[in-house]
Amino acid sequence: MKIAVLGTGEVGQRLAGKLVSVGHEVTMGSRTADNADAARWAAETGGGHGTFADAAASAELVVNATGGLVSLAVLEAAGAGSLRGKTIVDVSNALDFSEGFPPRVVTPDGHSVAEQLQKAFPEARIVKTLNTMNNAVMVEPGRVPGHHTVFLSGDDADAKAETTALLRSFGWAPEQITDLGDLPSARATEALMALWLRLYGALGPVDFNLSVVTARDLS
Amino acid sequence: MKIAVLGTGEVGQRLAGKLVSVGHEVTMGSRTADNADAARWAAETGGGHGTFADAAASAELVVNATGGLVSLAVLEAAGAGSLRGKTIVDVSNALDFSEGFPPRVVTPDGHSVAEQLQKAFPEARIVKTLNTMNNAVMVEPGRVPGHHTVFLSGDDADAKAETTALLRSFGWAPEQITDLGDLPSARATEALMALWLRLYGALGPVDFNLSVVTARDLS
Repeated sequence: MKIAVLGTGEVGQRLAGKLVSVGHEVTMGSRTADNADAARWAAETGGGHGTFADAAASAELVVNATGGLVSLAVLEAAGAGSLRGKTIVDVSNALDFSEGFPPRVVTPDGHSVAEQLQKAFPEARIVKTLNTMNNAVMVEPGRVPGHHTVFLSGDDADAKAETTALLRSFGWAPEQITDLGDLPSARATEALMALWLRLYGALGPVDFNLSVVTARDLS
Repeated sequence: MKIAVLGTGEVGQRLAGKLVSVGHEVTMGSRTADNADAARWAAETGGGHGTFADAAASAELVVNATGGLVSLAVLEAAGAGSLRGKTIVDVSNALDFSEGFPPRVVTPDGHSVAEQLQKAFPEARIVKTLNTMNNAVMVEPGRVPGHHTVFLSGDDADAKAETTALLRSFGWAPEQITDLGDLPSARATEALMALWLRLYGALGPVDFNLSVVTARDLS
């Protein structure tokens, strides 16, 4: 599948690399066509690179791996026409580091980045996922032992199914994938970043994730 | 130990009952001295009941089991003099049901109920805990199988130790108790209620809890 990964940071590089390794044709999108990080990534992996618009235009599916504070501008640069009808896997969090660490978790319009994007691009199919863990765990859930959870929020069942298939290809087992419901449920996982940052402070630099444990047998 | 449980709702009744069963002398506090729920509880368990002020005055430790939207008023009714120097175990969440279900999670002054209470009663020692699960799991963690987590936030080490001892008496194992740090970390767990409400919607009426799973061996 042709996939655009928007964003050249750690998260974008990690997701793009994994997507190449599981067989996709990946183009990394950035603000400018000559972004050095994107060019280096493309040279090392055999992937492509270009502007946000270049990447989105040829993609069948788009991954938003940009910071949540700039994601709206990035998708505007990608262009509504190139997002129309496509699944947009949104892994962003909106973190304001202007007052130091831990950053403040920003909720656009009191809601979520995911809803902000969906509102701006009503013909795109936004799915929020993977935004509650570090990027190493995103693409290699086995780094954290036993049962733990990745959440899914979105309004379009087909887009969620497509996203679930991607998660499965990353190594997530069906029982680890928890569908929280419609896109406004992304408010809950974006708000979770506050806990993640505190846990990072308490646990130190170790891979960790949250697990939903129920009284029902999950095995 | 003499313990005041402020609040006569499901959470207050559950916590007060457990505290009696593990050997404490418990007084349930409510707005009026003749609250029917509190009187019934006291008659059934051998505990005491009275106004918020009555309950707090004689207590060595206070549990705030009122709704977070009214907790400040409740502690004001209890009286600063009766809270001074005491550990206040705050299990509240501020939920606004005025627009239906799921309720909106309210963060007083953009922060947390716990911080709001600490600011109003600087000589009390607020500890936030147990606010991320249903009241049955609070006092009987074994209802949820395997490893799962209760969080702790507070500025006073002695108050946290006292709270940890209570949690231990409820059945929480040391490795299940995660200290998130200072009281502002309560923002993270109060915000978690948004996820809890979504999980409740997705899982239905089953006992569940979140577990922090790390790459380190927790056994």
